[in-house]
Amino acid sequence: MKKLIIILLVFAFSSAQAQYKADWQSLDKREIPSWWADAKFGIFIHWGLYSVPAYAPVDEVKGIYEKYAEHYYNRLLAGNKLFTDFHNKHYGENFKYADFAPMFRVEYFNPAKWADLFKEAGAKYVVLTSKHHDGFCLWPSSQTPHWNSVVMGPHMDIIDTLSTAVRDAGLRFGLYYSLLEWGHPLYTQSTIEKWVDTHMIPQMKELVNTYKPEIIFSDGEWDYDSKTLKSEQFLAWLYNESPVKDSVVANDRWGKETRSKHGDYYTTEYDLVHNNEGIGDKADHPWEESRGIGTSYGYNRFETSAHYLSSKQLIHILIDKVSNGGNFLLNVGPDATGMIPVVMQERLLDMGKWLKINGEAIYSSRPWRNANKSENEQIAFTQREDNLYLILKEWQQAPITIPGLEQAAKVELLGYGGKVDVSFQNGRLTITPPVLAINEYPSQHAWVYKISGFKD
Amino acid sequence: MKKLIIILLVFAFSSAQAQYKADWQSLDKREIPSWWADAKFGIFIHWGLYSVPAYAPVDEVKGIYEKYAEHYYNRLLAGNKLFTDFHNKHYGENFKYADFAPMFRVEYFNPAKWADLFKEAGAKYVVLTSKHHDGFCLWPSSQTPHWNSVVMGPHMDIIDTLSTAVRDAGLRFGLYYSLLEWGHPLYTQSTIEKWVDTHMIPQMKELVNTYKPEIIFSDGEWDYDSKTLKSEQFLAWLYNESPVKDSVVANDRWGKETRSKHGDYYTTEYDLVHNNEGIGDKADHPWEESRGIGTSYGYNRFETSAHYLSSKQLIHILIDKVSNGGNFLLNVGPDATGMIPVVMQERLLDMGKWLKINGEAIYSSRPWRNANKSENEQIAFTQREDNLYLILKEWQQAPITIPGLEQAAKVELLGYGGKVDVSFQNGRLTITPPVLAINEYPSQHAWVYKISGFKD
Amino acid sequence: MKKLIIILLVFAFSSAQAQYKADWQSLDKREIPSWWADAKFGIFIHWGLYSVPAYAPVDEVKGIYEKYAEHYYNRLLAGNKLFTDFHNKHYGENFKYADFAPMFRVEYFNPAKWADLFKEAGAKYVVLTSKHHDGFCLWPSSQTPHWNSVVMGPHMDIIDTLSTAVRDAGLRFGLYYSLLEWGHPLYTQSTIEKWVDTHMIPQMKELVNTYKPEIIFSDGEWDYDSKTLKSEQFLAWLYNESPVKDSVVANDRWGKETRSKHGDYYTTEYDLVHNNEGIGDKADHPWEESRGIGTSYGYNRFETSAHYLSSKQLIHILIDKVSNGGNFLLNVGPDATGMIPVVMQERLLDMGKWLKINGEAIYSSRPWRNANKSENEQIAFTQREDNLYLILKEWQQAPITIPGLEQAAKVELLGYGGKVDVSFQNGRLTITPPVLAINEYPSQHAWVYKISGFKD
Amino acid sequence: MKKLIIILLVFAFSSAQAQYKADWQSLDKREIPSWWADAKFGIFIHWGLYSVPAYAPVDEVKGIYEKYAEHYYNRLLAGNKLFTDFHNKHYGENFKYADFAPMFRVEYFNPAKWADLFKEAGAKYVVLTSKHHDGFCLWPSSQTPHWNSVVMGPHMDIIDTLSTAVRDAGLRFGLYYSLLEWGHPLYTQSTIEKWVDTHMIPQMKELVNTYKPEIIFSDGEWDYDSKTLKSEQFLAWLYNESPVKDSVVANDRWGKETRSKHGDYYTTEYDLVHNNEGIGDKADHPWEESRGIGTSYGYNRFETSAHYLSSKQLIHILIDKVSNGGNFLLNVGPDATGMIPVVMQERLLDMGKWLKINGEAIYSSRPWRNANKSENEQIAFTQREDNLYLILKEWQQAPITIPGLEQAAKVELLGYGGKVDVSFQNGRLTITPPVLAINEYPSQHAWVYKISGFKD
Repeated sequence: MKKLIIILLVFAFSSAQAQYKADWQSLDKREIPSWWADAKFGIFIHWGLYSVPAYAPVDEVKGIYEKYAEHYYNRLLAGNKLFTDFHNKHYGENFKYADFAPMFRVEYFNPAKWADLFKEAGAKYVVLTSKHHDGFCLWPSSQTPHWNSVVMGPHMDIIDTLSTAVRDAGLRFGLYYSLLEWGHPLYTQSTIEKWVDTHMIPQMKELVNTYKPEIIFSDGEWDYDSKTLKSEQFLAWLYNESPVKDSVVANDRWGKETRSKHGDYYTTEYDLVHNNEGIGDKADHPWEESRGIGTSYGYNRFETSAHYLSSKQLIHILIDKVSNGGNFLLNVGPDATGMIPVVMQERLLDMGKWLKINGEAIYSSRPWRNANKSENEQIAFTQREDNLYLILKEWQQAPITIPGLEQAAKVELLGYGGKVDVSFQNGRLTITPPVLAINEYPSQHAWVYKISGFKD
Repeated sequence: MKKLIIILLVFAFSSAQAQYKADWQSLDKREIPSWWADAKFGIFIHWGLYSVPAYAPVDEVKGIYEKYAEHYYNRLLAGNKLFTDFHNKHYGENFKYADFAPMFRVEYFNPAKWADLFKEAGAKYVVLTSKHHDGFCLWPSSQTPHWNSVVMGPHMDIIDTLSTAVRDAGLRFGLYYSLLEWGHPLYTQSTIEKWVDTHMIPQMKELVNTYKPEIIFSDGEWDYDSKTLKSEQFLAWLYNESPVKDSVVANDRWGKETRSKHGDYYTTEYDLVHNNEGIGDKADHPWEESRGIGTSYGYNRFETSAHYLSSKQLIHILIDKVSNGGNFLLNVGPDATGMIPVVMQERLLDMGKWLKINGEAIYSSRPWRNANKSENEQIAFTQREDNLYLILKEWQQAPITIPGLEQAAKVELLGYGGKVDVSFQNGRLTITPPVLAINEYPSQHAWVYKISGFKD
Repeated sequence: MKKLIIILLVFAFSSAQAQYKADWQSLDKREIPSWWADAKFGIFIHWGLYSVPAYAPVDEVKGIYEKYAEHYYNRLLAGNKLFTDFHNKHYGENFKYADFAPMFRVEYFNPAKWADLFKEAGAKYVVLTSKHHDGFCLWPSSQTPHWNSVVMGPHMDIIDTLSTAVRDAGLRFGLYYSLLEWGHPLYTQSTIEKWVDTHMIPQMKELVNTYKPEIIFSDGEWDYDSKTLKSEQFLAWLYNESPVKDSVVANDRWGKETRSKHGDYYTTEYDLVHNNEGIGDKADHPWEESRGIGTSYGYNRFETSAHYLSSKQLIHILIDKVSNGGNFLLNVGPDATGMIPVVMQERLLDMGKWLKINGEAIYSSRPWRNANKSENEQIAFTQREDNLYLILKEWQQAPITIPGLEQAAKVELLGYGGKVDVSFQNGRLTITPPVLAINEYPSQHAWVYKISGFKD
Repeated sequence: MKKLIIILLVFAFSSAQAQYKADWQSLDKREIPSWWADAKFGIFIHWGLYSVPAYAPVDEVKGIYEKYAEHYYNRLLAGNKLFTDFHNKHYGENFKYADFAPMFRVEYFNPAKWADLFKEAGAKYVVLTSKHHDGFCLWPSSQTPHWNSVVMGPHMDIIDTLSTAVRDAGLRFGLYYSLLEWGHPLYTQSTIEKWVDTHMIPQMKELVNTYKPEIIFSDGEWDYDSKTLKSEQFLAWLYNESPVKDSVVANDRWGKETRSKHGDYYTTEYDLVHNNEGIGDKADHPWEESRGIGTSYGYNRFETSAHYLSSKQLIHILIDKVSNGGNFLLNVGPDATGMIPVVMQERLLDMGKWLKINGEAIYSSRPWRNANKSENEQIAFTQREDNLYLILKEWQQAPITIPGLEQAAKVELLGYGGKVDVSFQNGRLTITPPVLAINEYPSQHAWVYKISGFKD
């Protein structure tokens, strides 16, 4: 009995210190750490056993594609014929999903090269799937002692290896984590409390304590509400006590009612929120769009040029998201040997090239409150300190007029040494674009006019 | 608070019903179910991932052999050079023990043939390793959702499959269970309570509730005492409440202090108890010897004729154990494809052939209290009802005299139709063995004189 | 003796019919079939067991790369440490090259998609490695009954499958063939005659008779002269009697003395001839450059963006080769599963896009005899009928002057609807390029002015 | 023309030296080397790719079994449903026979242990399948450069390795060789001459020259006559010129008409000759019976005790064959890992144990011309110098009478020290067997009375 009292006292004491209570009202008051709001561009990595079959049906003729190659296991369980036919043909009926584990060998994985690539792409943070819905852990989890990347397959603590390389390259590191696990015997209606208490929460805490991720991208929250999942308690611990309490950023997937309602930042996915009711990029709150370079998060070996977004499309997405106040978490799906397909490398490098010239319009920027989107879809604005950035997604040779500007000290085309002609009239700035030969453009795919010392 | 009270009341009530309390003093009072004491001869099966490498060093020249091929994993962990050299040569350094899982495919496993073989051998029960020290479960354990034979390897509930076949053949079915697991993150000094409460005890109860084994052959008990392992509570549940409470038999391995002290029956292994302090076959208590047909429990592909016991040796062991009050649990190590090597089949069939003639001297027998072992090592005695059985391990042509017998109604040589000459004198029975040509002997390897209606 | 005479008579008779004698003097008189001279752009495919390891050392920092991933086997035989270290680490020392055979499964090979891609790329012919230096045949060769793609690995007649798809797409089909085989017991100094008579020549004839290739890209000719290899006899048969005698085109690799000397067309490789003494693109004779999209013919999984040529570079190579009278055989290295990496697909599609606009300056064109290359490396010329094509590899805004032109009916920028201003003065045509915004350019990477009805 | 004449002269000269002409009349005059006639007992080894599936259907209930697991490939080619069902279930439809090659790894092959075992068994020679009907060579054959055990699978010259070990143990070494190869493109009616000249004969000569086998067990001779196969020429070379010309022994399978007609010794197989017309063990000519220990030559993993012959049966077969003038070539089918199943080891060791006591009745013996078989099937006779051996397959306690014997110096029971009572009367020897307890018999399964200095 004595013991219990002491514990309660200690708890009370620590409670007194805590900034956040374990309820949404309190948690929602937290301000998102500024590093994240400034970073704008991150890399998402979906990597696991699903990278072995690397399959989702695509048919460019019919326009059919399946976004989620990482859902392979679930599709087999559900008897989806497009998946079972493929599986039985290539692996046989008595080959089961778990048999992929020793084939996920990551034998050519070069974490330093990955980190270099992400840095070169201009990304500021990297988010890795610590554990996807199949439950396979990329670290030696105490809760999952036999179904992880140290015991099976790679025989490597992938989180440790990659996070070190990413941080060495100067980028922030975060973790995706699935609250649910397909087929786990404890993940049932009748045992959900035990699931949360003995498996899920301890596992998340182990992750945070061991690897100190500065982003928690939670997922698989749709079956239960956040009370059942004890998400408020976890977040309170994360914000008050965890080793990353000051810098960590958590998303909005903490229970079936939480998307676009709670969390440090809201999430969209291929421009949608999970239940099609979210507010997406209209949010006033920090938010982030994630999507694959092609049509899938997990590697899908059957994607072709018809499915991969072009560098131009990706740069435009980045511009759209950032100018609307969002971040862009672009997903990369490495293959089971540890290689990032060259087509993905090229997209990232193209983004990096563009950002090297135009990055100041992106990083640390904020949307411009006076931007009138309806006017011209090819023009976007961001603001940073007393600079306004006009971003052209298509080059415009005709003069460009920006209403609502009272004055500006200087206008320049980023990356272009030459002068840009401008004029002010009736609170409107008019830019006369320079005439350039094709090889004189400072960048490809989009261009930025920087309007310094502006007043609106 | 109300809830708690009610629970306690219910417990009290159920306690009142319970025959056994959760302490050794009470548990030790249980009488072993007679079916087991009568059965005498069982088959032990060690089968798991270790059956894939199926290796332990043997060297008949040097007389070196390693009994425990099923300890392969541990020997690798310990860096035993005889094992690591073999492993690195044949599987490579980056191949780990868990990678054996998909190679344990049991593709030719025929449970009905196995059961027929065991029955044909004259065995009355079969004990299967539900889980050995490597933690790999031969059933879809809730506590081990990713490291079991349904998810990995065979993709089969082996316990269910085999127990059904064994019972269909009219034999009893039991389970071996390892209390410890090498390398499990919860199996540590500091987390042992959690181990016991959330993993070990629930897993054992799941096993008992699901498969209703009538033998629990516990093992791996040597690191902690039975209090820590809560073995008394488990056994109280097993004896009072479990679905097999009346017929189940439990061995003596429930904590580091329990061998040859507690449990329904004591165990020896290759004639020894674990710590060399046991009383072995001198026990007054029910006991059982287990050992391999050769030098190993788990299949060791390198055993040759030099390592396998002969049929004669095995029959003699059975005679020795039974005439001393023990049972004999003879182990079979199937290979990873599900085959029982033919040499093992032959040994079992030879035992069966012998038991068909001489089984009445074995089954349901008890040692003869007047047997004087020192006199002739080649002669053993058992008793069953008012029959005394004199078992000759080597044929003796000279007259055989048994002191301490006052009378007998009839003496016969089992399996032999002819008359056997006997005479009584001074409380001694003298048998004059018949003269037989080699093809007239009723059995091979040992012979039984049945002395009916005896009095001693 | 009679038989011999008859045979000689028959031979004499058939000789009388034959257009070509089995000597270079006669063979060299053959005119190359015009289809090939008009085709300009072909696809080379290196595919075989070497596609399984898909390895050659590359190090973009040190600028080290190894062009020939398809030489993997030979490098192992030679003990090249860069290869043996890789091999031993990933496959083990007792794993030999032949063990790759069952891993070359081509399970996702879609020949119709390949053919579509090649057609979309603007290629007019496809040349497949029927057999590379490792001797592995992509058809069921009678001379190599156990080491071919029907018996091992794919279990498919790949030549048959691919040639059908390629022809269905309207492209011509040719075969690469290696005269030598590493490690074959007959390929030795002392047995070379037997090699030629019983293995090499019969195998080539079987190929020609069975698959009717319209290109023979011979290789591996460097160890023996063409007399020893009986190449003249083979070519006389090919030109006089084979089923493709009228349309077939043979290259120049028929003996160690033949490159750039004999054969329908000469070959360069990565801009070089084998012994660095060839005349390469200065040849008056038909010739062809072959090279990989990256740094290797066979697939090298370690190539990155740093190694792949850009679409711009590839289009420029095509322009350079064609404007100098050559063809361009661009190599593609599919992986062992039958997939063409997306980065390669994209390069091919980019070339196709360019050729759709500008192809008339390439196909069926001939070099312009008055072109003065030294003047401007960024400008190339081709001629076709009475059209002259001025090809700009870099856009030029300043007026472009072409000396030596007396008149022209019309000048247009291919793909651009607008008018192009031109003037004649002193036998010089001056073009004033239109001023275009970046999205108004009719193509990327290079542009073509078509000068119709010109006289020089 | 000159060249041809010289060659003929040389041939004539060498012919003059030759003992044997290339026709059966001459070849049949050869006397079999005495070592073979004295050796009596040899070991046959069928080992190859068929040892990987190791399958032939057996069903002891229906009494159905298939003798030839080594015919797996052919049965697949023929679409035998019992084989294709097994194959498709366990390996899949796109897995072909050749894919077994890398799985035939013989990783635990210990040639010295094999040789010791064969010696211990009392065998005097060993015959290995150099190449079975599937054409896979256990040596690096020049004629089969890609389909042999050095290039594929074991990566070992198995003939070299095993022959060395066998000879080191003091045994003779011979080779089985299949004249036909299933599916080889040259093995057809229209190309049979080329087959014989360029493949078969050179390959046999290579074998003989390289490994110097003292037995050639030819097989697969049934499709063509010996003229077509040029067997007479080969044998003339073998007997006149080869490095084993004096000691080599060749069997009778050299063309579809040759069994039991030509060759150093005739062959039976499971007591039959190929076409059921042979004379089998009634031959006056040297002959040899071959058969498996169980029901198959190649390893069949599905054989059980129901299929393996007992040691007693095997010893009786040896006695029957030898007493009728034959040799016994007992086949062993090792598994694909290089292990000889323990049940086979035990049979061999049992034979060795018997031969250690009774071998003098077997080795170097000849049938006794006066033996009257019809009288008692359990009694056999052999003769050696002036000793007659009476072999009892079943023990007989009653006096044994041998007619036709005029005198004898001594009678003893081999291995038994005691005296044996005999008497002569009317040219009949009568032996009165000693009365022995079961453990006094000098051997198991059969017993030999040696009658020294006999006259008949």
